[in-house]
Amino acid sequence: MSGLVLHPLAQDLLFREARTANTFTTEPVTEEQAQAIYDLVKYAPTAYNQSPLRIVLVRSDEARGRLLRHMAEGNQPKTAAAPLVAILAADNEFHEELPRLLPHFPQAKDLLFAERPVREESALLNATLQAAYFILGVRAAGLAAGPMTGFDFPGVQKEFLDDDHTPLMVVNIGRPGEKPWFPRSPRLAYEEVVTTV
Amino acid sequence: MSGLVLHPLAQDLLFREARTANTFTTEPVTEEQAQAIYDLVKYAPTAYNQSPLRIVLVRSDEARGRLLRHMAEGNQPKTAAAPLVAILAADNEFHEELPRLLPHFPQAKDLLFAERPVREESALLNATLQAAYFILGVRAAGLAAGPMTGFDFPGVQKEFLDDDHTPLMVVNIGRPGEKPWFPRSPRLAYEEVVTTV
Repeated sequence: MSGLVLHPLAQDLLFREARTANTFTTEPVTEEQAQAIYDLVKYAPTAYNQSPLRIVLVRSDEARGRLLRHMAEGNQPKTAAAPLVAILAADNEFHEELPRLLPHFPQAKDLLFAERPVREESALLNATLQAAYFILGVRAAGLAAGPMTGFDFPGVQKEFLDDDHTPLMVVNIGRPGEKPWFPRSPRLAYEEVVTTV
Repeated sequence: MSGLVLHPLAQDLLFREARTANTFTTEPVTEEQAQAIYDLVKYAPTAYNQSPLRIVLVRSDEARGRLLRHMAEGNQPKTAAAPLVAILAADNEFHEELPRLLPHFPQAKDLLFAERPVREESALLNATLQAAYFILGVRAAGLAAGPMTGFDFPGVQKEFLDDDHTPLMVVNIGRPGEKPWFPRSPRLAYEEVVTTV
């Protein structure tokens, strides 16, 4: 497409032909794929390189069963069938790693992020950016993502995380199965979204 | 890279070689580029296809001057020099467009999003996802993005938006100039971010 330099096949893979999948084949998502996805998307930007996203990969049947109990009823069949399920969370204590992550400004930890409410707001914003990078990273592996916020957040936090980690979304991951999605819904036109001043 | 199907050059363009730029050349960012970026990233997923991101492109000197007054001092030179500046915001009244955006579930507007606080929370999450897609879209156009949250949020909202639109970030856009960035900072290792259960 004119105006872009990204190859059209890559545009299709990440944006135009990729879709949110509601059904999946049984083909496993390997540990190698999960690592490759993370090792790509970790480079995308966050404020002060704070990198607050944390990921719980639900691989065992036992953990899957515990997660299913907290999913909204309409999401349970998808999450039961997905080859891999990831719980994405924000680490509200990300500042502990900051001196290592931001070597040119190690004071950021104490100067900017001494207060927990400040950290929570920043972690929510930046981990959400990273969740979007992760969704596109799943697509970069040739897989489909099914991100969901329809679940019991305190339940998932208590079951899989701790008081310092806030759940953001649960993502089903795999190859699209039978009738994996509705027809593509319309998008807003450029003129409806963008104003110029 | 093993485990991914996205072409290595596209991986470099979007993730590995792209960097947050602090200086820019004077080469303009065209309207064609801005449209191409939006028309690519509009396809990436949001909950119920709610698509709450709204974008103000600051192109006139007059508007640039008004924006600069609300930027943190450390961000002012970057925002003064960037060929194009975009204010990204969440539309808390996104539900008005939902019947059109979600034709297979037009009741979503009233069933799920009748309450303003519910809309605000959902718009914040989903517009933030779209902000991440937008940053990668800027890179897909061969440009560098410089996302910033160091500005007076109420000031920018009052100056450029209204009570229904919450600012998320300001993004400088252009080609990297002289000494555009620090050396790449370290990233957390896979084992530090991902746990498997």
